[in-house]
Amino acid sequence: MRYLMTFSYDGTNFNGYQIQKDKRTIEEEIEKVLTKINHNNYVKIHASGRTDTHVHALNQKAHFDLENIEEEKLKTKLNKMLPSDIYIKNIEKVEKNFHARYHKKQKEYIYKINLGEYNPLEANYIYQYNKSLNIKNMEEASKYLIGTHDFTSFVAASGKKEDMTRTITEISFIIKEDILTITFKGDGFLRYQVRNMVGTLIEIGENKKEVKEIEEILKSKDRKKASKTFSPVGLYLKDVTYL
Amino acid sequence: MRYLMTFSYDGTNFNGYQIQKDKRTIEEEIEKVLTKINHNNYVKIHASGRTDTHVHALNQKAHFDLENIEEEKLKTKLNKMLPSDIYIKNIEKVEKNFHARYHKKQKEYIYKINLGEYNPLEANYIYQYNKSLNIKNMEEASKYLIGTHDFTSFVAASGKKEDMTRTITEISFIIKEDILTITFKGDGFLRYQVRNMVGTLIEIGENKKEVKEIEEILKSKDRKKASKTFSPVGLYLKDVTYL
Repeated sequence: MRYLMTFSYDGTNFNGYQIQKDKRTIEEEIEKVLTKINHNNYVKIHASGRTDTHVHALNQKAHFDLENIEEEKLKTKLNKMLPSDIYIKNIEKVEKNFHARYHKKQKEYIYKINLGEYNPLEANYIYQYNKSLNIKNMEEASKYLIGTHDFTSFVAASGKKEDMTRTITEISFIIKEDILTITFKGDGFLRYQVRNMVGTLIEIGENKKEVKEIEEILKSKDRKKASKTFSPVGLYLKDVTYL
Repeated sequence: MRYLMTFSYDGTNFNGYQIQKDKRTIEEEIEKVLTKINHNNYVKIHASGRTDTHVHALNQKAHFDLENIEEEKLKTKLNKMLPSDIYIKNIEKVEKNFHARYHKKQKEYIYKINLGEYNPLEANYIYQYNKSLNIKNMEEASKYLIGTHDFTSFVAASGKKEDMTRTITEISFIIKEDILTITFKGDGFLRYQVRNMVGTLIEIGENKKEVKEIEEILKSKDRKKASKTFSPVGLYLKDVTYL
C-alpha cells in the first residue's frame, strides 16, 4: 500500500532533511519509526524534496510503502513514536505509482525577516535584520524572477549536469508587526535557490545593488554574480501541491 | 550608579533565572557579562523575581550598580556579549535606593495553551492541550481568585514562614486561532502560584472540579487541595511595573 503523508518539523535541531551518517536528520527519524512499525523491515520515505539544516517545514510531503493500516491509526502511532520536533499532520492512501517528488505541481516557501527589535524567543524562527530595507525596490526586482528561467545564477554548484530551468509563479511581500514575509511559489526550487534569491533581493533592498541588476544576474547564468547563500534561519517549506 | 534594565529571554535552554552551581541560568549569564564590563569586579543583579526552568520572559526587570556609562552604549555592549537567548531591551538610570523586587507595583504573567493541532515549531512556547476545555467555567472560577487573599493553597511549600497574601487584579481569557492565552495581573505572585492556579483552572475546564471548588480550595489554605504544579511550557513573565 502506498501512503502520502503531510508533516511539519522544527528544523532547529536537525542537520537538514536528508539522511547523513552520524547526524540527526528528519528522514532518519521518520524512517526509524516506520521501519519499527514494519516489523523491522526498512521503509524508505520519498519526500517532495530536501530542506537544509535549520530550515523548518509546515507542510512537507513524502510517500512510502507499508502494509495496509487505517490512516488515522497510523498517524497516531507515528506521532506517539516520533520526537517532539516532528509532527505528522495527515496520512492518505494514494495510487501505487504516485511519487511525492516527481508528481508535485507547486511548491511554496516563505522567508521571515524581523525588521523590528530583536526577540530572543524567535531567534531560530525569524531572521533578524537590523538595517532599513527598501522593500519597494525588492518587490520591483522580484518581478524579473517571475516566469520560466534558467536559474543557474541562483543555484548551488553541484558539479552535476542538471536542468536549471524552473518556473516561478509568485513572489510576494507582506509586512505585519515588523515581520517581513516573502512568499515564493513555483513548480520547484533548486538547491539554495530560495536562499540565494533572498540574499540578492536583500542586497537590492539595502541599495547595494540596483533593481535592474537582478535581470543581468539571471541572464548571466553565473553563480558568482548573485549574493552569497543567505541564512537558513527564517526559511520555511510552507506547502507542496499535487494534481 | 544604579541602573534598571528590561530584558527578554527564551527560557528553553535555561535552568531558570536564579544562579545555581553547574547549571545554565539567566542570572549567571548576565552577571558574567556585567562583571567583565566592571573590570572583573563581581556585579550582582537584583531581578523583580525568579522564573522557573523553561519559563520565558518578555519584559523581566532587574537593577544593578555600575560605573557611569551611557545607557545606549551599555545596552549595545551587553547585547553583543550575551548569548542569543537573552536580550536587553532597555537600560535606564534610577535612584540610588531603587529596588527591582521591593518596589514593583504590578506583575503580569501570561500562559499560552494550544487547543488546536500540535505544532512542533511551538513545542517550547505553547502548552499543547488535546482535550476540550469548558472555558466559560474557567472564567467563572477565576473570579474567585481576584482580590486580596492568602494563596497558601496555590504556593510551593517552602518551609519558610512567609506572608502568602497577594492581590490579583485581573485574570482574563482570550482565544485567537486555537491559542488560549490566560493573563494574570497582580501585585506579585508566589513560587509556582501561577502554574498551580493554571492547573486548577484547567481541571475545572475539564469538568474534573466544580467551579465553586476553587473558592473552597482557596479558603482551605491547604496546598494538597489544589492541582499539581502545571507545566512551565506556555508560561511567560510579560511585564513588571513600578511607580
